[in-house]
Amino acid sequence: MGLVSQVFNEEKMRPLVGHMAIGHTRYSTTGSSKLENAQPFVVESVLGPLAVGHNGNLTNAAALRRELLQRGVGLTGTSDSEVITQMLAGGDGRTWEEKLKVFMVRAQGAYCLTVLTRNALFAVRDPWGLHPLCLGRLGDTGWVVASESCALGTIGAEFVREIDPGEILMLTEEDGPQTVTRMPASHQAGCLFEYIYFARPDSVLYGATLHAVRVAQGRELARESPCDADVVIPVPDSAVPAAIGYAQESGIPYSEGLIKNRYIGRTFIQPDDRLRKLGISLKFNALAENLANKRVVLIDDSIVRGNTSGPILRLLRDAGATEVHVRVSSPPIRHPCFLGVDMATYPELIAHRLTIPEIQAHLGADSLAYLSLEGLIRSTRRDPGNFCRGCFTGEYPVDIEVVDKEVFEMR
Amino acid sequence: MGLVSQVFNEEKMRPLVGHMAIGHTRYSTTGSSKLENAQPFVVESVLGPLAVGHNGNLTNAAALRRELLQRGVGLTGTSDSEVITQMLAGGDGRTWEEKLKVFMVRAQGAYCLTVLTRNALFAVRDPWGLHPLCLGRLGDTGWVVASESCALGTIGAEFVREIDPGEILMLTEEDGPQTVTRMPASHQAGCLFEYIYFARPDSVLYGATLHAVRVAQGRELARESPCDADVVIPVPDSAVPAAIGYAQESGIPYSEGLIKNRYIGRTFIQPDDRLRKLGISLKFNALAENLANKRVVLIDDSIVRGNTSGPILRLLRDAGATEVHVRVSSPPIRHPCFLGVDMATYPELIAHRLTIPEIQAHLGADSLAYLSLEGLIRSTRRDPGNFCRGCFTGEYPVDIEVVDKEVFEMR
Amino acid sequence: MGLVSQVFNEEKMRPLVGHMAIGHTRYSTTGSSKLENAQPFVVESVLGPLAVGHNGNLTNAAALRRELLQRGVGLTGTSDSEVITQMLAGGDGRTWEEKLKVFMVRAQGAYCLTVLTRNALFAVRDPWGLHPLCLGRLGDTGWVVASESCALGTIGAEFVREIDPGEILMLTEEDGPQTVTRMPASHQAGCLFEYIYFARPDSVLYGATLHAVRVAQGRELARESPCDADVVIPVPDSAVPAAIGYAQESGIPYSEGLIKNRYIGRTFIQPDDRLRKLGISLKFNALAENLANKRVVLIDDSIVRGNTSGPILRLLRDAGATEVHVRVSSPPIRHPCFLGVDMATYPELIAHRLTIPEIQAHLGADSLAYLSLEGLIRSTRRDPGNFCRGCFTGEYPVDIEVVDKEVFEMR
Amino acid sequence: MGLVSQVFNEEKMRPLVGHMAIGHTRYSTTGSSKLENAQPFVVESVLGPLAVGHNGNLTNAAALRRELLQRGVGLTGTSDSEVITQMLAGGDGRTWEEKLKVFMVRAQGAYCLTVLTRNALFAVRDPWGLHPLCLGRLGDTGWVVASESCALGTIGAEFVREIDPGEILMLTEEDGPQTVTRMPASHQAGCLFEYIYFARPDSVLYGATLHAVRVAQGRELARESPCDADVVIPVPDSAVPAAIGYAQESGIPYSEGLIKNRYIGRTFIQPDDRLRKLGISLKFNALAENLANKRVVLIDDSIVRGNTSGPILRLLRDAGATEVHVRVSSPPIRHPCFLGVDMATYPELIAHRLTIPEIQAHLGADSLAYLSLEGLIRSTRRDPGNFCRGCFTGEYPVDIEVVDKEVFEMR
Repeated sequence: MGLVSQVFNEEKMRPLVGHMAIGHTRYSTTGSSKLENAQPFVVESVLGPLAVGHNGNLTNAAALRRELLQRGVGLTGTSDSEVITQMLAGGDGRTWEEKLKVFMVRAQGAYCLTVLTRNALFAVRDPWGLHPLCLGRLGDTGWVVASESCALGTIGAEFVREIDPGEILMLTEEDGPQTVTRMPASHQAGCLFEYIYFARPDSVLYGATLHAVRVAQGRELARESPCDADVVIPVPDSAVPAAIGYAQESGIPYSEGLIKNRYIGRTFIQPDDRLRKLGISLKFNALAENLANKRVVLIDDSIVRGNTSGPILRLLRDAGATEVHVRVSSPPIRHPCFLGVDMATYPELIAHRLTIPEIQAHLGADSLAYLSLEGLIRSTRRDPGNFCRGCFTGEYPVDIEVVDKEVFEMR
Repeated sequence: MGLVSQVFNEEKMRPLVGHMAIGHTRYSTTGSSKLENAQPFVVESVLGPLAVGHNGNLTNAAALRRELLQRGVGLTGTSDSEVITQMLAGGDGRTWEEKLKVFMVRAQGAYCLTVLTRNALFAVRDPWGLHPLCLGRLGDTGWVVASESCALGTIGAEFVREIDPGEILMLTEEDGPQTVTRMPASHQAGCLFEYIYFARPDSVLYGATLHAVRVAQGRELARESPCDADVVIPVPDSAVPAAIGYAQESGIPYSEGLIKNRYIGRTFIQPDDRLRKLGISLKFNALAENLANKRVVLIDDSIVRGNTSGPILRLLRDAGATEVHVRVSSPPIRHPCFLGVDMATYPELIAHRLTIPEIQAHLGADSLAYLSLEGLIRSTRRDPGNFCRGCFTGEYPVDIEVVDKEVFEMR
Repeated sequence: MGLVSQVFNEEKMRPLVGHMAIGHTRYSTTGSSKLENAQPFVVESVLGPLAVGHNGNLTNAAALRRELLQRGVGLTGTSDSEVITQMLAGGDGRTWEEKLKVFMVRAQGAYCLTVLTRNALFAVRDPWGLHPLCLGRLGDTGWVVASESCALGTIGAEFVREIDPGEILMLTEEDGPQTVTRMPASHQAGCLFEYIYFARPDSVLYGATLHAVRVAQGRELARESPCDADVVIPVPDSAVPAAIGYAQESGIPYSEGLIKNRYIGRTFIQPDDRLRKLGISLKFNALAENLANKRVVLIDDSIVRGNTSGPILRLLRDAGATEVHVRVSSPPIRHPCFLGVDMATYPELIAHRLTIPEIQAHLGADSLAYLSLEGLIRSTRRDPGNFCRGCFTGEYPVDIEVVDKEVFEMR
Repeated sequence: MGLVSQVFNEEKMRPLVGHMAIGHTRYSTTGSSKLENAQPFVVESVLGPLAVGHNGNLTNAAALRRELLQRGVGLTGTSDSEVITQMLAGGDGRTWEEKLKVFMVRAQGAYCLTVLTRNALFAVRDPWGLHPLCLGRLGDTGWVVASESCALGTIGAEFVREIDPGEILMLTEEDGPQTVTRMPASHQAGCLFEYIYFARPDSVLYGATLHAVRVAQGRELARESPCDADVVIPVPDSAVPAAIGYAQESGIPYSEGLIKNRYIGRTFIQPDDRLRKLGISLKFNALAENLANKRVVLIDDSIVRGNTSGPILRLLRDAGATEVHVRVSSPPIRHPCFLGVDMATYPELIAHRLTIPEIQAHLGADSLAYLSLEGLIRSTRRDPGNFCRGCFTGEYPVDIEVVDKEVFEMR
């Protein structure tokens, strides 16, 4: 439990020997970080030791869980990952390769897996290709698999390629990476939200750096929804590339108008009710000299629950902005994600409850425009048929079995 | 991880609500304390939640473990307790009562279980009755189950009775304790080492306080192996009752000759090799005024590996004892325990390697005598057919499947 | 903060180099353990680095503290030890020897000091000799100073002699121990409570092992206050030697009647009011077989607040004792200690509030007798003029400046 | 010890009552974080309790420390702050106001103090005004003092004014803030490095937001050292405003070329020598699409030791940049800071060892230019006589007593 840099210190790393390893970092949302859910999930099985790291969300997890309980397996936690691990440990198949294929036939939804067995490490990506998974090379003899390609640079590895949707890639000491199979899917369905917010700007997805895609989103947005203003400013840090793109396309100067308070800790501000009311505005300080007497285009990458934008607009106006025009580099998010992005529930989504003019009024903006779905897809330079558009349209690439309405929280 | 009084503090106890609970304390031997092996073991099963606390040692655990892996259950740890839990979660039977009976048919060896389900708490003792398990009453409406009866007084509960060998006792909120069944055994086989050392002197076993049984052991020993001496002293704390008994029967005055250094920590003495050589003698200080120019009868409850007795004898002689006669209130331990007492392996047992005269020479004693097996059993005032004598005779009440020669350490 | 064996682990000890060191363990009473008061107290001074470890209690600490504040020294904590350290750092004298002598002229009350400077370690005992301090030899070249001689055996050192009352002993690498001076006192005043309870039984004080002195107390008590009874039992652990002495002198058999619950933690029993009411009896379990239908002599070493004895007597009667005669191996404690033994305040002392017959009634004893002051002193085999009798008579060897009525707690 | 948000959690804050408080966060450089040096430093003094928080560096601390030792004060740590605290506790003066004035007469160098006494909180800034200190208003009745004005927004307070150089400001419950005195200085000497790097961009210093000053630095730099290039990119995060200014003035488009790896922990990369060699480049990933086939102006705020710039340039070239022109928005740093900015020692400063062309060659840049001292000062829009230019010119506003050449590390 804790930050990677605190937990994996020298003392803990030094005694680890061997030539294959997997690890996992959890994108922690309030309350869901428990030691029992920590990954990788490790068990002894009839084929020997098995460790599984999993990102994503199975949409038929509840049904698969019931199957396991019926089969007589006692389950210690509540995570998908234990379900996947026990499905592999006890599923049909004489080899790990067979067991992985059987798993992929049965599993619905988003999963990127790293699976460590005694003799091989497997990297597995769901057939829809919902979330990214990539292969890197480390020096002459090392190989590494990561969700996002930006992680490769951090350890001095080089990007080789993405794991294909539906691919099982086996890495062994003798033979390095070898494709076991590519399981077919009716269609591909890459997550558009990775392009908008989730993936880091220096990651590469389908050949394009996300920073460049986001700059292109800003340019599309400037073409679709131009604006007569003096300055373009981003909501830092995630909207910076789109704001640069909007500024480049529109010719309105780019500047910074908000500085993030990096050291705001949750616990520190809880004791004081007055602070809670001031709320989100404490996350940012406004730079009055860039805002006073100016007409501002504020670029945000997305509006999910709509709680942060209102206070930000008040900050800008208090700092002297005469007009604030909000431009959002993604379409309205009207539906939850059931495929691995912890976002929000229906009642929490502002664009589910309100029309765009109502949202504009709620935020107190002088104008509000969203990027169109077509514009968003155009910015990726990929085939429009390749995407999951669930959170925008409510049409998901797989059936959604909604067992309990979980409350997700983003940001 | 940690001491009960440190771990179960107010902060952790206060939020716990409900009317049934189980807990478990591990008798920690070097290296075997790991969080994964902490009990109770808790799983979700097809019949709902299940928690299992287990004391003892299954002699067919390895075979049962293989069965579970074959059945497709991935096992996260190495403990018997997880094997038992998964056997219950996935075993035959429509009810917990049936599943427990099926388990008892399959399990060989020592087990005292507390099993918590949604509606009932079960207390289960193996048919051989190898280790103790008892029922207590707490106020007007409460019930409590514990391994040793001395625990009852600690929380203000009163001893009601022992759980019988082979008994499944079900406790529910509505009906209190009810016997589900008494599974038959070919014979009973209570652990004699509980009488000698393991159980606390204020515990009650088959109607007798262990303190009284140990005083009787000392009296038997005085009759079997008398000695011409000036003072009887115990190895504290465990041999105090036997020394009192020896003194009473022999008429030789009882006194203290050794004071235990309660604050010796393992880590503190490790850095210094010289200290390691001084070794065990540092655990005790000798009281010269009770020993100088005296012939001493030193009472010990048992000699397992023989490492402590030699340094103790040197301490006594350095303090001026003219003769030291060692009397042991149990027979020579020549075989390991495979039934739940972490004792020692064959090569570690001094009485497996050496004859009694050789042990006497090794210790540097003026004489050495052990209590006879008959004398030991007589001190219990129970039927001689009711005991496990494995550590003395090598004849165990159940078949022993020795998978890996584990190295146990006692004291 | 924590137990010695937990705090001074290998990791912390290994990097410590050098040939001289001092350490300190605090006898922790509720609430007074704070990091700021941890010893040794270390400062940089005009004569170089200075570290001071202190046991005892200065009776003029408040006046000395005011002097330091007047002199312009800011004090970080509330302990005597910082006062002593700053007095040494800034007091008159060109050398540490001179500064120590000046300190001893100014200080009133109980102090045993270890003082570490760059070139020497000093051991200092107050002129009244209130509490013990001794010198030991460790191998051929090492020297060690400790409050109680029992600590020497723990590290393999040998007892050499006590530091004399008023002595400043200087230990250097070149010359070993050398007496700097012996500061004179009007008279000596050794603490009698060390003989009764405080010092460990295997410690040596003025040539006598405390165990033997306590056995002698029991013999004196048997002569002064005999009793017609079947069994002598101690309140464990501290009254065991006196009970052995009483049994030897009276001819009544010695036995155990109470087993201490070593694992009772404060926090564990707090949550439950019912347990609090059961209170102290939970510290012990009674051994019914040694008590039922017996007339019992219960030996306690002292009665301070009288809270533990009543519940113990109820335990004994519940276990079947027909009579309970309490014999206390010390006189009634009617006055607090202001000289280093954390005992109790006037209103807490039962013998300050009640007469002996009233105490007997309060305890519910069939008879009650205390050892006489003369008998206690006789058991030490030392000159009667050599003792502090303050807690028995209210006459202290030094003036007591009672600044704030601190509430001490013993046991 | 730890991060503010981890240490000052609800549990620790809730029990704190009262209406005045001070706290202190240490800018931690390797090895210097010790509990003994934690602030505020708290003592009991002859005028009652005293707590002192201190930012800065006294240049005559060693001499003041010797004075205290001569006066007989034992010092527990090595920090300036304890010296200041004991000077106040024991210095001349009948009131805290007098004692503070006496301190300011004696102290040389940089100090911003918060001093808490029983009845008042004092905010004190050295007469040279080396580092910032400001007053804010919290609601209707609260007042707050902070080093940087950006901290005010974080807790919902409003900026009122800076504490003047040489000012002693007293805050009491009854009267709020009142100026006690303004101690005179021969001249003012505000730290220029606060303008360049140290202070946060949303802080206000002498009426100007630092973000705006830094944008102005970039504009000055563009005028002084123009460049024929395709894109302006900053070294994130600190050089972003200067890069925006350079882009605005030069007309060359602003873009991002480097993404910071926020999660690089020191310990995590230590185990592996290969990683250490890759070194600083791991702190950043390059965005190839913004760099490939482009002539790049790289804006950095300062070059101190020159270790980071070389690897960054290699990153840019590996990503395809055809030319890299380095522009630094401050003059060459040729001298250490002895006045509170932990920077570097003479041998570590690259501009002390090398000429500008040598530095250009060392970095592998196509061109290199620094902002002139005049340009830097012009960007502040303040009187040129008001600054400390020590790190650029070696001429400091106060005498420097260099006792031990401490090795500072910046970044």
